[in-house]
Amino acid sequence: MSQRPDTAEAESLAPETLEGWYVLHDGYTLDWAKWRSMPGAERALLIDELAAWTATAGTVEQGQSACYQMLGQKSDLLWLHYRSSPAELGAVERGLRSCGVFDYLVPSFSYLSVIEASLYEATAIAHGMLARKGITPGKEGFDAAFEAELEVQRAALNQRVFRDIPAQNHICIYPMNKRRGEHVNWYDLSIDERRKLMRGHGKLGRKYVPAVTQVISGSVGLDDWEWMVDLHSDDPLLFKKLVYEMRFDPASSRYAEFGAFLVGLKLDDNALRQYLAL
Amino acid sequence: MSQRPDTAEAESLAPETLEGWYVLHDGYTLDWAKWRSMPGAERALLIDELAAWTATAGTVEQGQSACYQMLGQKSDLLWLHYRSSPAELGAVERGLRSCGVFDYLVPSFSYLSVIEASLYEATAIAHGMLARKGITPGKEGFDAAFEAELEVQRAALNQRVFRDIPAQNHICIYPMNKRRGEHVNWYDLSIDERRKLMRGHGKLGRKYVPAVTQVISGSVGLDDWEWMVDLHSDDPLLFKKLVYEMRFDPASSRYAEFGAFLVGLKLDDNALRQYLAL
Amino acid sequence: MSQRPDTAEAESLAPETLEGWYVLHDGYTLDWAKWRSMPGAERALLIDELAAWTATAGTVEQGQSACYQMLGQKSDLLWLHYRSSPAELGAVERGLRSCGVFDYLVPSFSYLSVIEASLYEATAIAHGMLARKGITPGKEGFDAAFEAELEVQRAALNQRVFRDIPAQNHICIYPMNKRRGEHVNWYDLSIDERRKLMRGHGKLGRKYVPAVTQVISGSVGLDDWEWMVDLHSDDPLLFKKLVYEMRFDPASSRYAEFGAFLVGLKLDDNALRQYLAL
Amino acid sequence: MSQRPDTAEAESLAPETLEGWYVLHDGYTLDWAKWRSMPGAERALLIDELAAWTATAGTVEQGQSACYQMLGQKSDLLWLHYRSSPAELGAVERGLRSCGVFDYLVPSFSYLSVIEASLYEATAIAHGMLARKGITPGKEGFDAAFEAELEVQRAALNQRVFRDIPAQNHICIYPMNKRRGEHVNWYDLSIDERRKLMRGHGKLGRKYVPAVTQVISGSVGLDDWEWMVDLHSDDPLLFKKLVYEMRFDPASSRYAEFGAFLVGLKLDDNALRQYLAL
Amino acid sequence: MSQRPDTAEAESLAPETLEGWYVLHDGYTLDWAKWRSMPGAERALLIDELAAWTATAGTVEQGQSACYQMLGQKSDLLWLHYRSSPAELGAVERGLRSCGVFDYLVPSFSYLSVIEASLYEATAIAHGMLARKGITPGKEGFDAAFEAELEVQRAALNQRVFRDIPAQNHICIYPMNKRRGEHVNWYDLSIDERRKLMRGHGKLGRKYVPAVTQVISGSVGLDDWEWMVDLHSDDPLLFKKLVYEMRFDPASSRYAEFGAFLVGLKLDDNALRQYLAL
Repeated sequence: MSQRPDTAEAESLAPETLEGWYVLHDGYTLDWAKWRSMPGAERALLIDELAAWTATAGTVEQGQSACYQMLGQKSDLLWLHYRSSPAELGAVERGLRSCGVFDYLVPSFSYLSVIEASLYEATAIAHGMLARKGITPGKEGFDAAFEAELEVQRAALNQRVFRDIPAQNHICIYPMNKRRGEHVNWYDLSIDERRKLMRGHGKLGRKYVPAVTQVISGSVGLDDWEWMVDLHSDDPLLFKKLVYEMRFDPASSRYAEFGAFLVGLKLDDNALRQYLAL
Repeated sequence: MSQRPDTAEAESLAPETLEGWYVLHDGYTLDWAKWRSMPGAERALLIDELAAWTATAGTVEQGQSACYQMLGQKSDLLWLHYRSSPAELGAVERGLRSCGVFDYLVPSFSYLSVIEASLYEATAIAHGMLARKGITPGKEGFDAAFEAELEVQRAALNQRVFRDIPAQNHICIYPMNKRRGEHVNWYDLSIDERRKLMRGHGKLGRKYVPAVTQVISGSVGLDDWEWMVDLHSDDPLLFKKLVYEMRFDPASSRYAEFGAFLVGLKLDDNALRQYLAL
Repeated sequence: MSQRPDTAEAESLAPETLEGWYVLHDGYTLDWAKWRSMPGAERALLIDELAAWTATAGTVEQGQSACYQMLGQKSDLLWLHYRSSPAELGAVERGLRSCGVFDYLVPSFSYLSVIEASLYEATAIAHGMLARKGITPGKEGFDAAFEAELEVQRAALNQRVFRDIPAQNHICIYPMNKRRGEHVNWYDLSIDERRKLMRGHGKLGRKYVPAVTQVISGSVGLDDWEWMVDLHSDDPLLFKKLVYEMRFDPASSRYAEFGAFLVGLKLDDNALRQYLAL
Repeated sequence: MSQRPDTAEAESLAPETLEGWYVLHDGYTLDWAKWRSMPGAERALLIDELAAWTATAGTVEQGQSACYQMLGQKSDLLWLHYRSSPAELGAVERGLRSCGVFDYLVPSFSYLSVIEASLYEATAIAHGMLARKGITPGKEGFDAAFEAELEVQRAALNQRVFRDIPAQNHICIYPMNKRRGEHVNWYDLSIDERRKLMRGHGKLGRKYVPAVTQVISGSVGLDDWEWMVDLHSDDPLLFKKLVYEMRFDPASSRYAEFGAFLVGLKLDDNALRQYLAL
Repeated sequence: MSQRPDTAEAESLAPETLEGWYVLHDGYTLDWAKWRSMPGAERALLIDELAAWTATAGTVEQGQSACYQMLGQKSDLLWLHYRSSPAELGAVERGLRSCGVFDYLVPSFSYLSVIEASLYEATAIAHGMLARKGITPGKEGFDAAFEAELEVQRAALNQRVFRDIPAQNHICIYPMNKRRGEHVNWYDLSIDERRKLMRGHGKLGRKYVPAVTQVISGSVGLDDWEWMVDLHSDDPLLFKKLVYEMRFDPASSRYAEFGAFLVGLKLDDNALRQYLAL
């Protein structure tokens, strides 16, 4: 890894972010006609191989993998991979291509991103913590106290960006951008306006914790949208409730652009085998 | 199912909705060349299997299914499924994939949503009911009377969101969004403005009752648009009349965005068999 | 057919229209490699079958059909069908699928609409007729005279919406919408403004009569655009002249949105056979 | 050909144009795997047939044809045809489909247009010519002199619209529209504003003559954009220089919308054979 | 090469640019099922042939080539070619089509451009250099000194536009345009405003040197966007950091439009062979 350039100069404009696992969403449609035309014994072997591959991918030392049955015609099966580098995701991709079942999979959706936590919030929380202790900007000792508090927040965030794949049994994924319209342009707002909007937005998201687990990954410079959002919940109706409620929040109503939404059901080893069996 | 978070805080912005059946629209094009190349006896067996599957899917305990012949090249056949959860829709999807005819079907359209009723209207109706009895906001007893009346409305809505598939023999389906433009943005209107616009919109829709049955399903967080609209009628010209008339209604003229429109003819068991016979 | 709802209430906003034949545009690309690989004698039989089907479809009691060779790669062959209901169009579609040649056709374009005449104009003409006789609104007898005159106009329009497929040997087809922009929105204009704009537009179209025959079909609620325009002419340069001239007319320059344009040559029985022969 | 309608009435809005050859751009990708799998001797015959067809198409009495190797994956080979009618272009298209090599070609791009010259400029030139002779509008004899001068300009333009395919060895093609935005709308400008903008635009284009030959064809009413632009040059860098420079010209910067750009190399008989040989 | 026209006249509007290598990005998906179905010995031969071709393409006298494993489903393998003309890129393209492995490659992405350096900056640097020496515009000797200084800058830029493919092991590529909106239009800014915005933009880019190597190629008149940006780095997270930071820079926040982003890993001979081995 090369040394990172000093980005301090631009920090007044671009919010600092903390990154964790790189993420690959990898969706496929099964060619059922071809799949059905294969002798059953051969198919059983391919199912064993794929199930073993999925299980192994799910228990690597660095990262995790899971498999979902997607609803509708957008994808039949989708694998979600968390890894520590694009190169490792490349190896995972190549690994699936080595499985015999890959001859029956038609690529339908993929997305590359990296789990991130915005420090918009950490900064705000640190300010709030100190304020409650009477330590306000300008006061003696503020700088040191602020840096210490921020470090605490950063450590908490670090754990969040290197998290496990949530255990909940439904997934909802969608990409989003902040609008860069001719009149309404997120990137032309001051950092204070953006921070304020994101704070309200975050509050709304936290209302659904722990019923819905949000995993936000950034994809600026990695894929076609700016963020990928993964929601995990045992109650799929909450996907609708949460996203709809957010749609009225100014950070979304004015500034968010959404791509396609995919919803799926988590498959354990047994359910994956059953899905593929004929 | 996890416990639902308390969404009261945000109700001033996002209108409350009531949800019923989850809905899957599932459309396919038949590969006629491949279908024709099969021995007739084999084809007859596949038709029997599919007709039986469709009939069974149509008579489950929880929900219902129906099959349509679609017009134009967008789809040949489309199944409409009402079910009580995404998992059950996943099972239905998987079920069709188990039918032999699936080897001859090319996926062409699918959409996931959940039938919803907006409480915009229920609230308004409850207010109106009480007003006619002289019970207006502020008056003693209003709150209890209002909650009671609302309960009546909710019960009526509940029946509507768990309804049967309408029996009429033509279907028109299209997805829609409320506009989130840089200048004209539905989600930036006050709830009063939105309520007023929706009331006019609802009135217009009711003019066509019972000639046209509207089934509105929400798909925020589930699929690519915010709503899916299904119109059912014995007179297909009413699809044009109703949608055209609505286009001049401000809730649509300014705030609605429409996706692709599909029109089809309901197929009973016999008609489905005839459609597939050569 | 169910009883139509009374749409009088909304007439102040949505212009009344009169509908005639339902229309299906049905375009295909021929798989030439597959077509060529067939034994010539077999191919001759399929050509006979298709020519016979096309001829029969063209002489049904209710409606008409014609076949065109399209220019460019968008389609090779396109059938145009006028029928009295979507169900009959569905039967025509199914009919082509029964022809052996369908195994060599790749669907490339279809569109569902219904020939319509706007009463914008009829109303204006009736007003003009009466005015010339000195019968103006408010005067005694105006209402009865107006209704009578409108009836005459409606009868004329009725003949137009149940017309034959024009005999001219070139066709130009394209879909269009009236713009619903954030600032420039046709559906937010008053009916008077719309009527005035459409009158100028109609005048321009009539300049090209009889060299160009325009057939306007509405597709709100039926397909993805609001209208499908079919131009028929013996001189294809007039397609360019007419559409270009209209582009400067305010009803188009500000309010029209256009989809893809397709141009083709009418094929009689002999030309269709020649096109398919190798 | 039917008699043209008198378009004089609208001339104040739509600029008069002069039309020449109809143009078809016809691009294909070669299915190299299938092409390679054929016995070499058979392939040689198909190459002979195609080369002969291309040569013949290039030397018809009315019009001309040429073949290009296109860069990138958009197309492998593209034929450019100039003909005197859509029907003749239809015959050329059908002709290529009769060549054995067509079984190995996958359609990738086509465009129908007609070479045009705008009389915006001719009018201006005629005015200038007379002004230099002291004959200005209003003066006696102006009308006759103007009509005579315009006739001269028209004759020159006529030669231009029935031109040969330029001999230069690189081609750059792209479609364009004049913008019809909600705020910036070419078709809402006065003819004087448009004339002035087009004059500056034309001047810029002439700077590159003869290094770049521009062939402008109109496609309003014929294909999906309003114009197709063909640039021909021996120096491909001039495509970039010319188009980039024009992008700063107000007629383009504010009013032009561009489609996909394709760049190719002219193939003579020998180069075409070499391209296809394995 | 024909003589270039004198473009001096327009220089006040369009910034002068300097061009170097022509660039082809050429991406493919491997048909793994077909690849796996081939006997292993045959496959080994094809891998040898492709590796040899890639190595040879990488060491031509004029230009260079490299191969990347791309992440996600957009492409499996992508070749990057620098060459001195479109004709040579055409020859490279044709060369890959001659490799046996091409029967197993499905084209997925290509882009034609030419490495460019804008003289926006060179001019500014020359001005600054002279100013520091006290030579300001208007002063005697300024013109000659300025031209001399500009020549130095041009020589430096010339080396940059004929550079080698960066050695770093990750690549990020994306196309971009400057916005030509109805209200926010880059091409309507004065050259001073554009120069100022580009200077800030360039400064931000230089912060990441040498950790990230940017190669900007122009594609106006060559392909569908105005520029193609290639970022090369050993630390892929910097792609995100750099592009995100730039998004807040006014030259990007207001004026940039981005296409699809692709990220890949550089493959040396060994890694390419390993990727293809089964």
